[in-house]
Amino acid sequence: MAPFLSKRDLQFQLYEVLDTESLTSRPRFTDHSREVYDDVLALAYNVADKYFANHTREADLNEPHVVDGKVKLVPAVQAAMNAFRDAGFFSAHHDEELGGLQLPWVVMQAVQAHFQAANMGSSGYPFLTIGNANLQREFGTPEQQLKYMLPLLEGRWFGTMALSEPQAGSGLADITTSATQRDDGKYTISGTKMWISGGEHELSENIVHLVLARIKGAPAGVKGISLFIVPRYRVNDDGTVGESNNVVLAGLNHKMGYRGTTNTLLNFGEGGETGGELISEAGKGLSAMFHMMNEARIGVGMGAVMLGYAGYMASLEYAKERKQGRHASSKDPNGPMVSIIEHADVKRLLLRQKSFVEGGLALGLYASSLVDDIATGMDDQKADLSLLLDLLTPIVKSWPSKYSQESLSDAIQVLGGAGYTRDYPIEMYYRDNRLNPIHEGTEGIQGNDLLGRKVTQANGRGLAVLVEHMTADLKGSEGLDGVAEIRNALQTAISQCGAAFKAILSRAAELGPDLYLANANSALEMLGHTVVGWMWLRQAVAAANALSSAKGDDQHFYRGKLQAARFFAVYELPKVKAHADLLASADATTFEMQGDWF
Amino acid sequence: MAPFLSKRDLQFQLYEVLDTESLTSRPRFTDHSREVYDDVLALAYNVADKYFANHTREADLNEPHVVDGKVKLVPAVQAAMNAFRDAGFFSAHHDEELGGLQLPWVVMQAVQAHFQAANMGSSGYPFLTIGNANLQREFGTPEQQLKYMLPLLEGRWFGTMALSEPQAGSGLADITTSATQRDDGKYTISGTKMWISGGEHELSENIVHLVLARIKGAPAGVKGISLFIVPRYRVNDDGTVGESNNVVLAGLNHKMGYRGTTNTLLNFGEGGETGGELISEAGKGLSAMFHMMNEARIGVGMGAVMLGYAGYMASLEYAKERKQGRHASSKDPNGPMVSIIEHADVKRLLLRQKSFVEGGLALGLYASSLVDDIATGMDDQKADLSLLLDLLTPIVKSWPSKYSQESLSDAIQVLGGAGYTRDYPIEMYYRDNRLNPIHEGTEGIQGNDLLGRKVTQANGRGLAVLVEHMTADLKGSEGLDGVAEIRNALQTAISQCGAAFKAILSRAAELGPDLYLANANSALEMLGHTVVGWMWLRQAVAAANALSSAKGDDQHFYRGKLQAARFFAVYELPKVKAHADLLASADATTFEMQGDWF
Repeated sequence: MAPFLSKRDLQFQLYEVLDTESLTSRPRFTDHSREVYDDVLALAYNVADKYFANHTREADLNEPHVVDGKVKLVPAVQAAMNAFRDAGFFSAHHDEELGGLQLPWVVMQAVQAHFQAANMGSSGYPFLTIGNANLQREFGTPEQQLKYMLPLLEGRWFGTMALSEPQAGSGLADITTSATQRDDGKYTISGTKMWISGGEHELSENIVHLVLARIKGAPAGVKGISLFIVPRYRVNDDGTVGESNNVVLAGLNHKMGYRGTTNTLLNFGEGGETGGELISEAGKGLSAMFHMMNEARIGVGMGAVMLGYAGYMASLEYAKERKQGRHASSKDPNGPMVSIIEHADVKRLLLRQKSFVEGGLALGLYASSLVDDIATGMDDQKADLSLLLDLLTPIVKSWPSKYSQESLSDAIQVLGGAGYTRDYPIEMYYRDNRLNPIHEGTEGIQGNDLLGRKVTQANGRGLAVLVEHMTADLKGSEGLDGVAEIRNALQTAISQCGAAFKAILSRAAELGPDLYLANANSALEMLGHTVVGWMWLRQAVAAANALSSAKGDDQHFYRGKLQAARFFAVYELPKVKAHADLLASADATTFEMQGDWF
Repeated sequence: MAPFLSKRDLQFQLYEVLDTESLTSRPRFTDHSREVYDDVLALAYNVADKYFANHTREADLNEPHVVDGKVKLVPAVQAAMNAFRDAGFFSAHHDEELGGLQLPWVVMQAVQAHFQAANMGSSGYPFLTIGNANLQREFGTPEQQLKYMLPLLEGRWFGTMALSEPQAGSGLADITTSATQRDDGKYTISGTKMWISGGEHELSENIVHLVLARIKGAPAGVKGISLFIVPRYRVNDDGTVGESNNVVLAGLNHKMGYRGTTNTLLNFGEGGETGGELISEAGKGLSAMFHMMNEARIGVGMGAVMLGYAGYMASLEYAKERKQGRHASSKDPNGPMVSIIEHADVKRLLLRQKSFVEGGLALGLYASSLVDDIATGMDDQKADLSLLLDLLTPIVKSWPSKYSQESLSDAIQVLGGAGYTRDYPIEMYYRDNRLNPIHEGTEGIQGNDLLGRKVTQANGRGLAVLVEHMTADLKGSEGLDGVAEIRNALQTAISQCGAAFKAILSRAAELGPDLYLANANSALEMLGHTVVGWMWLRQAVAAANALSSAKGDDQHFYRGKLQAARFFAVYELPKVKAHADLLASADATTFEMQGDWF
């Protein structure tokens, strides 16, 4: 079986494109060194390989089901959770005093990447738990952290986020789950939540749900939404697990893929009272939830990248080994068959995958490094970098979700009929990844977020910061050998994006919000490709600088990077123009379409 | 459950875009009338709805498996086969003296479209049978037709095509299955065939395999390949079914989708002799096989269209019924939720689907009408139209295969999380259709066929005929209301294609075959979108002409057609330029990429 990621590429991304080692000069990371990070990554690879990759297909073929009222998973999932816990990954980025290693977020994300690539379904449980704990760390009271967060850091309890409801879906403004304050200051929670991943299982002693609900009498819309900690089992004063909190499994969703992660319909307050604690302030639940949500969006993007990455590795191995056909120029039918990697169209399919998944990995790690810079970097840059991260988040979430799907389709195509069978894992990755453009905010929501909020936020400062950073990298690449195509193509794409944003923004008032947003998807496509083009410039520069002194495999590696950057420049970036033109024209085709005309 | 196709659209395509009724003036079809065709289509709808749509999901959940050495399918498949047979569809396009109705091929294809939309898996068995019989009709001796073809027309026996082998896949030049002539003039067949759809089952009294093999001593490569009729059971002199012919099931393939169609690995000559009859001439097997293959390629394209169509219908129904969210301009959180079809991005997802599936349907039916024109049209046009059909075949096969997948992805997206579950059929269609870019010649093969053979065939006459036809339609659309966008966009796309083909063809010798073909996929993309743009011009013209006198639902229907044409013009045709530029530049990125650099 092919490896699920390239260790060499991860090293390149962390140490040659990003300067992750330089983080060790910051006060929070002074105990660290490159060796520490490499040891952590090696541990992640080994645990992911041994305890996660071993049951990916098994979990796909045996989706969670209910036996005697309990959700049954394949047994290997529990072993994987134990191994993840024993390795200390639940708390690795937290303070030492909380049992953590104070790992930078970019290293933590690189750790998680291994588990996403090895087994997306099983990695869902710890990642939701980590996100839940991070939210509690930000908004919980010391008592709440002690009671509900520490067991998550120890990997004894797991966590979820419970936002959606059957009647509301993505429309969080319309949720109806209610919270009624009791005499003891806590709340009685009542309602139904839909699409709750990890909502019920027997993997952990308890499950801590973070639940959006309306306090009785709160105003309609998002301003009336608060956030609550709702455990599956009530927690005794000594921290031990008590009786049922009446969170009842009402059904499991049967999905096309991503089957390893249980997805549930939950009733709160069925057959008895469900108690919950308010976390953060009343009426500010959505804003608190977005702390976890924004992190989850980067996580979804990285998960998409890694599914695509695993598919790329599998198709690459196949293409090197499988012999079939001859070059078009070969006239001798008795000549030997060539490896299919020799065929130009197979090279196209592989280069396209490489440009998507390595470009996506660069983007996800870059965004993660911004999280570190905002937390531990130079104070005078934090505001700008926060705006930049806000701007990039819809792209980090949606671009890999979409383009890993194309990448996985290309991976299937490399294998032909074999890729369509369950004898290879790629068809599973393809099914798994199709969820990513849907959950944690659909592609439509990401487009509206980008064009409707992020581009205009702080008078467009986020976009200005992005352009400053891209321009600096363009400047730094002047005259470098082998980067001309990506340089020129990126420069063109930046101009096209700039012109399109200027055109649409200047007409925003005249168009009104509905028509202004009608082509938000094109904004997402246009800026997404441009940003990934920038990620390829950064990789090309690193490769070009290293190439002259590189030898053997390293030389091949850097040439591959330059060729993939050229591919993205020549095959992908020219697609920006059509989207930019459409956005700039404020085209009204969809806006004017009537339901009756379909 | 949503209908699987739009009867109104099918009528529009057949009678308003194509002039199918005019076929009745041709000698072969004088007994026909529009009423005859409409009755046949109504019958197809009813049989497809009652006997095929009823078990699509059941067959997906219970894929073919082996019990006591026999392939077991869900029982409803047999009932579907019987209903298809009782309706007379196995022979409906054949001569009356063979029990047929002499239906035009375009009507036959419209009949088949119902079954493809209702149940792709089960429709595979009759369609392979029909294709097999058509090949025998063209190349079989009268004795072979009596013995092997008539039982297929009667729906008593089924047929397959057996080309691929495990070691050769798409590389047919390297097949090794052997044929040794016996004293009686027949052949002993020995070897293994892979990916054989419908290769083994108990649905019919016998299975007639059409098998590519090499006669002992034949030259290497495609010139040494001959075609053989190989029945599952030997056929007695009186036409009854005799003993086993030793075609042994070696395994079933377990696929991501398309599960209703058994897909097999078959050993010929295992445990006893397998006998076969040569059909067509020795050494001309591949050319004969391509008779069936070209028909199958149009069939695959139409199948892809209809899967996309069924998904579009399902997502459209959902979008009309599901209420969620409000317009961006709506500020009142207490206001009612709107149907999601009101949201611009959902309209985009639906319009995109509409433009892909209705454009694809127009293309598939147009290609089918060319089959009729070549067979029964004016003699002086037949040579040109044959070249046109040859040119279009790779596009008719591959464009819907690719764009129905995008369409089905959009359909999933309309439903959000629900679309990702097995509660709706769309995720199944999405899995089913992913086979279409692979079988009957991968997308890579179609690209090479287009740029390497079809574009240059007969000194480029096929391309010239295409341009003549498109130009005539452009001329006919001058000054018509509501068609300006599609007219202008098509004109631009035609120029871009023309310039790109001219540029690459003028350098063909200099580039050599490998580099010349390196960007064949861009040729396929560029010409595919342009041809579908043409199909949208034709639909827009028909709609614009009918709109002035239309009322009620018809008025809505025609406005929808014009809006979808506009969508394709504004959102899709601008994508032609990037592909045309790439092709024209003879870009060497993939050509120069080395295997070691990955």
